[in-house]
Amino acid sequence: MNATVFRREHFNAAHRLHNPEWDEETNRRIFGKCNNPNFHGHNYLLEVAVKGPIDNETGYVIDMKILRDIIREEVTERYDHKNLNLDTADFKTLNPTAENIAAVIWNRISGRINNEYKLTVRLYETERNFVEFTGE
Amino acid sequence: MNATVFRREHFNAAHRLHNPEWDEETNRRIFGKCNNPNFHGHNYLLEVAVKGPIDNETGYVIDMKILRDIIREEVTERYDHKNLNLDTADFKTLNPTAENIAAVIWNRISGRINNEYKLTVRLYETERNFVEFTGE
Amino acid sequence: MNATVFRREHFNAAHRLHNPEWDEETNRRIFGKCNNPNFHGHNYLLEVAVKGPIDNETGYVIDMKILRDIIREEVTERYDHKNLNLDTADFKTLNPTAENIAAVIWNRISGRINNEYKLTVRLYETERNFVEFTGE
Amino acid sequence: MNATVFRREHFNAAHRLHNPEWDEETNRRIFGKCNNPNFHGHNYLLEVAVKGPIDNETGYVIDMKILRDIIREEVTERYDHKNLNLDTADFKTLNPTAENIAAVIWNRISGRINNEYKLTVRLYETERNFVEFTGE
Amino acid sequence: MNATVFRREHFNAAHRLHNPEWDEETNRRIFGKCNNPNFHGHNYLLEVAVKGPIDNETGYVIDMKILRDIIREEVTERYDHKNLNLDTADFKTLNPTAENIAAVIWNRISGRINNEYKLTVRLYETERNFVEFTGE
Amino acid sequence: MNATVFRREHFNAAHRLHNPEWDEETNRRIFGKCNNPNFHGHNYLLEVAVKGPIDNETGYVIDMKILRDIIREEVTERYDHKNLNLDTADFKTLNPTAENIAAVIWNRISGRINNEYKLTVRLYETERNFVEFTGE
Repeated sequence: MNATVFRREHFNAAHRLHNPEWDEETNRRIFGKCNNPNFHGHNYLLEVAVKGPIDNETGYVIDMKILRDIIREEVTERYDHKNLNLDTADFKTLNPTAENIAAVIWNRISGRINNEYKLTVRLYETERNFVEFTGE
Repeated sequence: MNATVFRREHFNAAHRLHNPEWDEETNRRIFGKCNNPNFHGHNYLLEVAVKGPIDNETGYVIDMKILRDIIREEVTERYDHKNLNLDTADFKTLNPTAENIAAVIWNRISGRINNEYKLTVRLYETERNFVEFTGE
Repeated sequence: MNATVFRREHFNAAHRLHNPEWDEETNRRIFGKCNNPNFHGHNYLLEVAVKGPIDNETGYVIDMKILRDIIREEVTERYDHKNLNLDTADFKTLNPTAENIAAVIWNRISGRINNEYKLTVRLYETERNFVEFTGE
Repeated sequence: MNATVFRREHFNAAHRLHNPEWDEETNRRIFGKCNNPNFHGHNYLLEVAVKGPIDNETGYVIDMKILRDIIREEVTERYDHKNLNLDTADFKTLNPTAENIAAVIWNRISGRINNEYKLTVRLYETERNFVEFTGE
Repeated sequence: MNATVFRREHFNAAHRLHNPEWDEETNRRIFGKCNNPNFHGHNYLLEVAVKGPIDNETGYVIDMKILRDIIREEVTERYDHKNLNLDTADFKTLNPTAENIAAVIWNRISGRINNEYKLTVRLYETERNFVEFTGE
Repeated sequence: MNATVFRREHFNAAHRLHNPEWDEETNRRIFGKCNNPNFHGHNYLLEVAVKGPIDNETGYVIDMKILRDIIREEVTERYDHKNLNLDTADFKTLNPTAENIAAVIWNRISGRINNEYKLTVRLYETERNFVEFTGE
């Protein structure tokens, strides 16, 4: 029997959307207010879903406390109260759109859990805008 | 690499559930309070999900501002502060259940985005009752 | 020792803002989309607060089940799945703005609880627009 | 045309995670605070999703009122304001993890609806921890 | 210049409403399902508000991290994943209604902050039922 | 008859807490992660409450559309997708704590509405941390 377990964590960060291969006018046209050179920020809400068999002895798919600690080590401690563009290695050259942040987080967590699990990462930038990445 | 982006918009509308091929007693029995001939209403929360490849240059699946504008043109401007049964062409003859509203919205938005995208529409009639339509 | 207890209930209703003493153009200018003659609607969230002494024997200010039943009898059963303008005596002549609805609800509930209690009614028309009435 | 309808209900219950085949130290190590022999509790939020064809006459996949009554008979009336370990037959010997509770609820509701429907059960133990069960 | 700062924390606990001076039938009649001798439980959401002058040097009324630590030491570590009736000294003889829990928390936190501050405690037992205590 | 009307708006901004009269070590000790020289950010949720008499002709305390426009002109257009420290005149020298931001917003909106109204500003920095300013 399989189930999916979900864990939510938060981080608050500054970022800026920018493509260094474009001129300033193109950056402003495509990214609008998100291109502000002085950055803006968000309360990011991260939702990590892990699907796999329910263990007969524990009744768990995966211990939420272990999943929580993986998320904190891989994501929260790196990104919380940081400037994603300036303070993290992950987005030094990669544009920190919600799509790209979700993909990077998926890769980070994927490296820490068993391959048998199906992993999904959902990232809320605001209540109105969010993205999901499943590794496909 | 694929991701799904989600955008939420709202509209507040009146509606009534009614099947003109049934007699009044059957309408009341099946639709209950929702059959009130003088209408009732909801704050509808609409969630539109678009799945597709992440563009290398923008880091976007689809620009949220473009998706937002499509939703506003196709849905919000037509339905917000309207009586779905009386004021919209879409529900002059189609019963405005949450299922049917979601299907109509899916068709409207589907006609405005590239076929390569997978589109999902979720419509919350209340926090407790909601529906999802995927075009299947 | 005093405490305030809060109870939330919901009702879904259609309404229209309109002042019959004004001409149509003035109604449209002041009430905008809310003046639609065919009505629109909302999921109203009602929050009733009752402040008074904590009873030594029960540990209650007022039994929530009793407060819930008063709200349902006075408000929910009258307004839920109704057209406030057409189906209720309360708004046959009174314009159903959020302010007026809250005041009417305050008066209804006030007549059902002891005078020693301080009563506050908060009414959410949407997550973004809400009002509070305290009887002053 | 297919759609999925979702209905949410709540129940408030006490529980304890415990495996009687383990010694106390192992139970404490694996289940941590959730192993408290005197129990703790949660406001469980249950979300039931039913996918199937939209009926042409009603515009419904399934009447929400019928789905609501099934959930109340099978789940809410059994679990609400109960101790899951002591007061319910379902968890006398089965460890009431969120995963196991979701699976039991899925089986209960599955027995009450047509096989043509695809059923999904999501159970929120807290806003941060939740699980989904689809019968696979 | 004065401001009020609010901090929210959570705890999940089991409890039972019971007055030992009443017979069983009276307890059941007054407290209903909350009188279950095997307990039930809640996700309690606690909101602590502190009003006072804004400090010129820090721009704070009170450092949220200090307030958070006081709440955790006084409340969360004592009540989280506990049975309020059996595991805490505070409710060995005091009936753990939301009103009484809020009053006890108010007294605990009041003893840890400067008298110049005005303290308010709000406790959500569910989204629909909550209480506020201000020390009056 | 008086009522209070509430309007919510959002803005997403970067900021940094810092007192230029302190050395770096003191800034880090007092402001912790919020002192990051590269900034972090938040989704700020702003709630503006206006209390006054209900107008007999409109049934309004104040037209929500007018209040919304004042908030957008005074707050949202200045702060949204900005770096509060670098991009706004308001926080060039004033430390952008939630308390100070709320006070500045109160002053801005206060200058735009009639003195007869009682104005309250609540600012949510996160779901867990928020402040209120009433002009006292």
